Amino acid sequence: MRFAIVAGTTETATIDGISAAGADPAATAHTPAADLELVVYGEPVAHTVPVSPTGCPTPAVITRAVRSLTDFDLLAVDAGLTTRTAAPTVTIGEGPGADIRTGEAVPAAETLFDRGRELAAALPDDELFIGETIPGGTTTALAVLTALGQPASVSSSLPENPLSLKREVVSSALAASDVGEGELAGDPLDAVRLVGDPVLAGVFGIAAGAMERGKSVTLAGGTQLLTVAALLRHAGIDRQLSVATTSFVEADDSVSLRAFADRLDVELTVTDPGFDQRDHVALDAYCRGEAKEGVGMGGALALAKRDGVPMRTVRDRTVQHYQTLTADDGA
Amino acid sequence: MRFAIVAGTTETATIDGISAAGADPAATAHTPAADLELVVYGEPVAHTVPVSPTGCPTPAVITRAVRSLTDFDLLAVDAGLTTRTAAPTVTIGEGPGADIRTGEAVPAAETLFDRGRELAAALPDDELFIGETIPGGTTTALAVLTALGQPASVSSSLPENPLSLKREVVSSALAASDVGEGELAGDPLDAVRLVGDPVLAGVFGIAAGAMERGKSVTLAGGTQLLTVAALLRHAGIDRQLSVATTSFVEADDSVSLRAFADRLDVELTVTDPGFDQRDHVALDAYCRGEAKEGVGMGGALALAKRDGVPMRTVRDRTVQHYQTLTADDGA
Repeated sequence: MRFAIVAGTTETATIDGISAAGADPAATAHTPAADLELVVYGEPVAHTVPVSPTGCPTPAVITRAVRSLTDFDLLAVDAGLTTRTAAPTVTIGEGPGADIRTGEAVPAAETLFDRGRELAAALPDDELFIGETIPGGTTTALAVLTALGQPASVSSSLPENPLSLKREVVSSALAASDVGEGELAGDPLDAVRLVGDPVLAGVFGIAAGAMERGKSVTLAGGTQLLTVAALLRHAGIDRQLSVATTSFVEADDSVSLRAFADRLDVELTVTDPGFDQRDHVALDAYCRGEAKEGVGMGGALALAKRDGVPMRTVRDRTVQHYQTLTADDGA
Repeated sequence: MRFAIVAGTTETATIDGISAAGADPAATAHTPAADLELVVYGEPVAHTVPVSPTGCPTPAVITRAVRSLTDFDLLAVDAGLTTRTAAPTVTIGEGPGADIRTGEAVPAAETLFDRGRELAAALPDDELFIGETIPGGTTTALAVLTALGQPASVSSSLPENPLSLKREVVSSALAASDVGEGELAGDPLDAVRLVGDPVLAGVFGIAAGAMERGKSVTLAGGTQLLTVAALLRHAGIDRQLSVATTSFVEADDSVSLRAFADRLDVELTVTDPGFDQRDHVALDAYCRGEAKEGVGMGGALALAKRDGVPMRTVRDRTVQHYQTLTADDGA
């Protein structure tokens, strides 16, 4: 078993109000690089700890906590970072994705898909978890779902999902690409190329390559990963597929998570880390609906559960880890 | 503790008769990429297993065997690979080094050094082992030692060290760079830039960055790593420094290993894996003087010993590993 985390960036994240994956829009460019370092080393080494504008720590803290408890093998993938990272990565990307309102968001989509597919096919592992870290990723996901004609709803790293802003951006994106709603059904690579992001292209390729080789694939995340499931189904890949996400995404009223998964014939695992059972600043923000998911968090929690690690232990390790990172006692 | 393996290539390796790190000179370009995959995944996934012209397996097999027994944290560094690798790497390089007879072997030497130095300084670990994989590396090492005026002798991956060929190449290199023997004493970066290779530049930077931060550094390898020790000393870095290598390098008559280490005030650890105590094709070649060292082998053996893993266990795991890789029963 190997846990791939695919990192990248899209200029779409710099649209004001779109993403909470960073203290401000400019900071979001560093978030995926720092997330990878955090999961690899236990701390961001060339960057600072990503926090939301309200101080909610990146879900990478929880994924790292689970990694320190279960010692899963990690594969960090660079699908389009803009900053150098001290995390060892397999690079399949060619830089950041463009703002989806510019007409062609990921010109290299096919290359990303092919490289991801080759990588996954070559891996010796029979089982793959695949997570993501890309600020702005739910907006690009919504655009792709709309282009595919997939009944679309996406979550947000913000407690108040800026859905009307997202839909406005998606409308502009489809207009700029001259694509109507549902016009790219059955053309998933075109949907990613025109209005997606480099991480969607990379995860799509990795999942496709693994599934074609009969490997077990769990997409570790929320609505962005369900969008990858949609891409796979639109590519005609109908093998068994799992998505593992958090209870925070399930609790998001803007998403009909189970219906979304059912439509795509995806086996859905929802894990509740029980953050409401412990009062700590690192956990409270999640209970208020911030962050919700990301950097493979839902998959990591599912893995902890499968390995028999109690959620109490995951919570304790998360708090401990957060305190080391911030030298904050949470009081 | 973290074990860095720095991989790269130099056109110098394609000179006929210089390197045994590959079935033929052209194959040597793939060797470092495959070595990294082998240590990361247990098998080369995008490449074939590197063997010498006589079939001696790459020392990466032994380093991987130790990794599977001790579970050390690995940091693969790309200082100048020519082929894509499926191993996750931190990329500090800008492509292969040139043939050292062309005048300037590593134009990016200073960038490599700086990036390696920053990376090492940022790592959370207090202790670093650093190994290398670069075919042709003993020849470039000899050139650097000669330019530094360091009494020079280097080992070889071939049982008969082609020293006269190496000296001829080194003479041409110094002439092409217009550098006299010893003329670059005290100018280690210039020595690497003119007649070195990208891996020397990268390891030099990583070791310097770690030592400056007071981290414990063990250079894991033979005469190439002693050359890095020389670079560090010529840079005025006089902190405690260890080199851990194999008994096969010590047994090499063309190298006065202990005198070499003493001159550089380096603490030397030599580990004998006892390959003569078991009759198997994967081990016999080493006893005949092939390969000898590389991909951190000497450091890995020292680490196994420190962790209380018996050399018998290392041998058994190496043979087992080799059999899985080659589907060869060693008969």
